Amino acid sequence: MNDAKPIAVAAPQHSHFLKTTKGISMRIKPSINWLFAFIPVTLALEHAGLIVRATEQIATRTGDAVGGLLNATFGNAPELIIAFVALKAGLLDMVRASLIGAILANILLALGVAFLLGGLRYRDQDYNPAAARVYSSMMLIAVVSLAVPSAFSRFFAPEETIRQETLLNVGLAVVLLVAYVLYLVFMLKTHPGAFAAKGGHVGEEAEGKHWSLRRAVGSLVGASLLAAWMSEILVGAAEGTGTALGMSQVFIGIVFVAIVGGAAESLSAIVMARKNRMDMTIGIALGSSIQIALFVAPVLVLASYFIAPQPFELSFGRAEVGALLMAVLIGAVVSGDGRSNWYKGVQLITVYLIIALMFYFLPEATRP
Amino acid sequence: MNDAKPIAVAAPQHSHFLKTTKGISMRIKPSINWLFAFIPVTLALEHAGLIVRATEQIATRTGDAVGGLLNATFGNAPELIIAFVALKAGLLDMVRASLIGAILANILLALGVAFLLGGLRYRDQDYNPAAARVYSSMMLIAVVSLAVPSAFSRFFAPEETIRQETLLNVGLAVVLLVAYVLYLVFMLKTHPGAFAAKGGHVGEEAEGKHWSLRRAVGSLVGASLLAAWMSEILVGAAEGTGTALGMSQVFIGIVFVAIVGGAAESLSAIVMARKNRMDMTIGIALGSSIQIALFVAPVLVLASYFIAPQPFELSFGRAEVGALLMAVLIGAVVSGDGRSNWYKGVQLITVYLIIALMFYFLPEATRP
Amino acid sequence: MNDAKPIAVAAPQHSHFLKTTKGISMRIKPSINWLFAFIPVTLALEHAGLIVRATEQIATRTGDAVGGLLNATFGNAPELIIAFVALKAGLLDMVRASLIGAILANILLALGVAFLLGGLRYRDQDYNPAAARVYSSMMLIAVVSLAVPSAFSRFFAPEETIRQETLLNVGLAVVLLVAYVLYLVFMLKTHPGAFAAKGGHVGEEAEGKHWSLRRAVGSLVGASLLAAWMSEILVGAAEGTGTALGMSQVFIGIVFVAIVGGAAESLSAIVMARKNRMDMTIGIALGSSIQIALFVAPVLVLASYFIAPQPFELSFGRAEVGALLMAVLIGAVVSGDGRSNWYKGVQLITVYLIIALMFYFLPEATRP
Repeated sequence: MNDAKPIAVAAPQHSHFLKTTKGISMRIKPSINWLFAFIPVTLALEHAGLIVRATEQIATRTGDAVGGLLNATFGNAPELIIAFVALKAGLLDMVRASLIGAILANILLALGVAFLLGGLRYRDQDYNPAAARVYSSMMLIAVVSLAVPSAFSRFFAPEETIRQETLLNVGLAVVLLVAYVLYLVFMLKTHPGAFAAKGGHVGEEAEGKHWSLRRAVGSLVGASLLAAWMSEILVGAAEGTGTALGMSQVFIGIVFVAIVGGAAESLSAIVMARKNRMDMTIGIALGSSIQIALFVAPVLVLASYFIAPQPFELSFGRAEVGALLMAVLIGAVVSGDGRSNWYKGVQLITVYLIIALMFYFLPEATRP
Repeated sequence: MNDAKPIAVAAPQHSHFLKTTKGISMRIKPSINWLFAFIPVTLALEHAGLIVRATEQIATRTGDAVGGLLNATFGNAPELIIAFVALKAGLLDMVRASLIGAILANILLALGVAFLLGGLRYRDQDYNPAAARVYSSMMLIAVVSLAVPSAFSRFFAPEETIRQETLLNVGLAVVLLVAYVLYLVFMLKTHPGAFAAKGGHVGEEAEGKHWSLRRAVGSLVGASLLAAWMSEILVGAAEGTGTALGMSQVFIGIVFVAIVGGAAESLSAIVMARKNRMDMTIGIALGSSIQIALFVAPVLVLASYFIAPQPFELSFGRAEVGALLMAVLIGAVVSGDGRSNWYKGVQLITVYLIIALMFYFLPEATRP
Repeated sequence: MNDAKPIAVAAPQHSHFLKTTKGISMRIKPSINWLFAFIPVTLALEHAGLIVRATEQIATRTGDAVGGLLNATFGNAPELIIAFVALKAGLLDMVRASLIGAILANILLALGVAFLLGGLRYRDQDYNPAAARVYSSMMLIAVVSLAVPSAFSRFFAPEETIRQETLLNVGLAVVLLVAYVLYLVFMLKTHPGAFAAKGGHVGEEAEGKHWSLRRAVGSLVGASLLAAWMSEILVGAAEGTGTALGMSQVFIGIVFVAIVGGAAESLSAIVMARKNRMDMTIGIALGSSIQIALFVAPVLVLASYFIAPQPFELSFGRAEVGALLMAVLIGAVVSGDGRSNWYKGVQLITVYLIIALMFYFLPEATRP
């Protein structure tokens, strides 16, 4: 739910609208969009509840980190499909924007709001610092893996190095996928304890009745699909609204749509923080970012050679790579000690606001 | 005392001198300046003592971190006023140089010398690592908030984006000020314990007689005002001397004047380290940097729209932003474990020397 | 053994070959080279064993960190001599490539493989986190010290600032050498405990007989010289092979030759990890990087003014400095908690692969 591939479906006509009938139709649309928006928002709130409950039930058996992983996987799966559709339609810039937007929204906004709201209820909240460290180093690897092809496409003339860039992108994608598979082996097989929740949350599991594993997984899949469908509608509404409000395409893609599209998943992370289950909060927010950077992105690169009209390359602008690097560095420093409080949430949200401001004012033509 | 706004008052005629009568008058001036310099240096040493004692007396009641905060506030208050005067006179480059110079001098030089001299007396010195982590993440946020407008003014043609830059700068300033106010709430209200000194230093408080809070605060205010006045004289002398010695304006602004102007405050940090009160040392040095970046800088941005001939923007060169980022990263790694020794001081001083060398040799015209 | 100065001796004719008889002779050479390569590889494996045993014997008396330091010193000493020869011949680019290649190979590949193979035998391996932190901050300082002159030579016209650059380079070299000497004082004199191994490894020392200190040091020196000689042959072979395989000079210098040339030393680090002596592993891998950056590099800069046809400056491209910064940041996050496992090895190796891919595809002419 956290990235914004749905734009891929809705956007072309919008951006077309924008150029041809800029103004007139825009002023009518938002009101309809806002109307549409209200329904899914209420539904989202209810269904996030279902996702949270299903995740908790699974986590009873698998541990918090694995529960978070499942949550992230079912959350990202529908978007992967939508991104495929977008790739096929050749909307490469939108896919790129949705990737970077989803990562930023997860590690700064979702985690920040979860820290803030969790910290307003509990003075200090503890979680496993070793897990946070693994997440931080995974994200740094992701930044390197995005920075390299981005620097390439910025510095070198395209005609001369097209073959090189293709090989570089494929090579990077394979390296990242192998690292991601080994990360799953590490997390699920050899070192599940490294991600174990502190304390164990035994008492809380008695809250509701035990669900069967089948029912829990089924609920998670069903609710995730529903949330994906809702976020599609929401994202369409968000896009129209954003355009009508005069936001740039960059801002809509990286910030506005990422927030709206990722609302359901962010909600799960926040609800868990309010229940003082920080390991699951971190598993959802950071685990989802890692999945996008180290699984979704390379899969899209590789798939683009088969389904897209032109290869999809991980070439981002300076602003995107810089924002990602700073987000990851601050995330590492803020979350590295295994203890959160409300002000850490404020810090993460502050950085998100600064980055959002930057993208808001970034002129579209002269984008570096 | 730690930033160099006094140049604002003294500099115009110097830089004017520099261009018109370069050479002749310069050779006479320094000798007079050096004469002037000797008086305030001795006074500074004495008054730093008073500042330290007043801070200690306040800290007896408020804790080390709050004591450090008060020390930093009274240390920065006079400069804020002087910076206002400089803004009004349109000396934007000088204000910028003094901001960046003060931050670098605090987190690298003052802390480095304090670690070094403290470490020569005590083998290992402990302080609260959670507090150091908060300071580090605040500084990273400050770096992001300076990097964004700096990248903007470097990459975009000014004529097209002037309105955008104005909004961006105002937006950033508001975000930073809100974050700073919440930081004070966090530090003083909700989590004073997070900044509490390790151990408690109960024994040392018995060193002198207890002052009344009024006397302690009064002494701090008085001594700070005196130190500010002295640092003004010193900075004027330093500037003349630097120019006479052929230093570039960049080096004088960012390095030479920052060291001289921040001497009194640095002295407080060092004296505390020699007394093994590292939490206060860190509170003074890092707290002061945070205050400059997250309070003084945004206030100046907002104020410039009312008092300055042109808006003051936080647009620094690559060298400044790069130096700041590296300083903050090294500061985070070096100070993150809550234990200092003399060699950590050497490391911080080394980085300061490298950065100072860079600014010394930076050609003025082709500055990136 | 870990950097690739031997290219200096073998390379000129190769690169000459490359330009004149590109193709024909190249196709014959590799087969001979591969033949040559087999002998030293087997010898290397045997002698690494001798180096390891000698280092262990010394460490019995001096502690693991000092053992690692000695290992690194004897490993780097022969290359320093070879680099002198290369400087004298004016092969500055090769010396630069070998420096950066050796650092990257040590902190990413050698440490990564050691973590991976050590972690496959032992579930979790502990080492002294304070020592890892010192190494990390030293490496950050090294990055700053390389980034500054690199930025200089990139941004400024050479004719105008040649005198400036000379002074900057000499100044930096002196600062780094002083920092390195003080680092030795810190490590060997005032805080040997900060680098002490966790636990003490008393049991393992009984493995073999105790050697006399003279025999241990003698073996280390002898084996190191032998390994240096072998790595010269190996590097020559590697260079020819790399050129024949169509690798760019950048890739050969920074990646291929660095791996081959550093094989013996990397082997020591890996063997120690398999014996669960992680403090020595880290001492060898990171200690060697620090020595190259803070001792070998500045010594070469200073020496170049006496022996080289033109001054040797620490001016690297963006790709090199960027790679180094990311390597050090990831190294700091991954190794900072004093506990390793196989997946941390995978992470470091992944970053090395990404960087190697970058250099592989970097076009030579348009190198930024």
